Amino acid sequence: MRVTFRDASEGDLPALVAMLADDDLGAGREDTSAPLNPAYLDAFLAIDRSPDQLIIVADTEAGIVGSYQLSFLPGLAYQGAWRGQIESVRVARPYRGQGYGSQMIEHALPLCRARGCKILQLSAHLDRTDAHRFYERIGFIRTHASFKLAL
Amino acid sequence: MRVTFRDASEGDLPALVAMLADDDLGAGREDTSAPLNPAYLDAFLAIDRSPDQLIIVADTEAGIVGSYQLSFLPGLAYQGAWRGQIESVRVARPYRGQGYGSQMIEHALPLCRARGCKILQLSAHLDRTDAHRFYERIGFIRTHASFKLAL
Repeated sequence: MRVTFRDASEGDLPALVAMLADDDLGAGREDTSAPLNPAYLDAFLAIDRSPDQLIIVADTEAGIVGSYQLSFLPGLAYQGAWRGQIESVRVARPYRGQGYGSQMIEHALPLCRARGCKILQLSAHLDRTDAHRFYERIGFIRTHASFKLAL
Repeated sequence: MRVTFRDASEGDLPALVAMLADDDLGAGREDTSAPLNPAYLDAFLAIDRSPDQLIIVADTEAGIVGSYQLSFLPGLAYQGAWRGQIESVRVARPYRGQGYGSQMIEHALPLCRARGCKILQLSAHLDRTDAHRFYERIGFIRTHASFKLAL
């Protein structure tokens, strides 16, 4: 299927939340009840307002097959390099293993370059070993360990 | 020494760049020549302009002993949770091993909570095993592998 990449709109939120929840790790932490938990709309609006945050959806004639969030982060390190950071890469269950994830990462590269980013970074849960192999196959190098603290 | 935490100012840039460079991993990638490479000022101004980016310095009567960058990132996952993200945690060489790193992380926690963040996340190079132990000791959990692609 031919994929069109576009910025997410408010109307995509139920589909995006369903993708976040339809995941071994995400199932317990999302709220898929209807009407949608307003916290998702608040988050969407914060992303939509920021010039440094994007949610991109991969859309097809059959509907949304995937999405990812892209952040542009300024920093002093690496001689003041901007970085792109990808979070929440998801492919809808019926469409996994068909190359859409790879297409999404490839879609992010020119967006990052256009913003002057020198590095694209992402983290994947230690349990997502398929994702690790996927990122290494498309050229990422596993350089860091990532830590989280619940607040 | 008593530490005061404050937002970095433009005048701190030479000290901040020197700390980034005085590091086994950072040495080869920073430019410490004077006058300062203007890319650092550009990056500082981008951070200074953004309501979601901070560089905090740990200042003492002897000068700056450390710094870190804190980013506030909106996202859909975890029911629309904001995240804090720490990058470029550095303690000046003469002051390492004296608890300043821990004080900096503790300083970040209320800033993140005040912005409604549910998670604080950071990545440390796989070679920085001392840093890994440090983060785990203060309560972080190693959950993710982190990947980078040079653009």
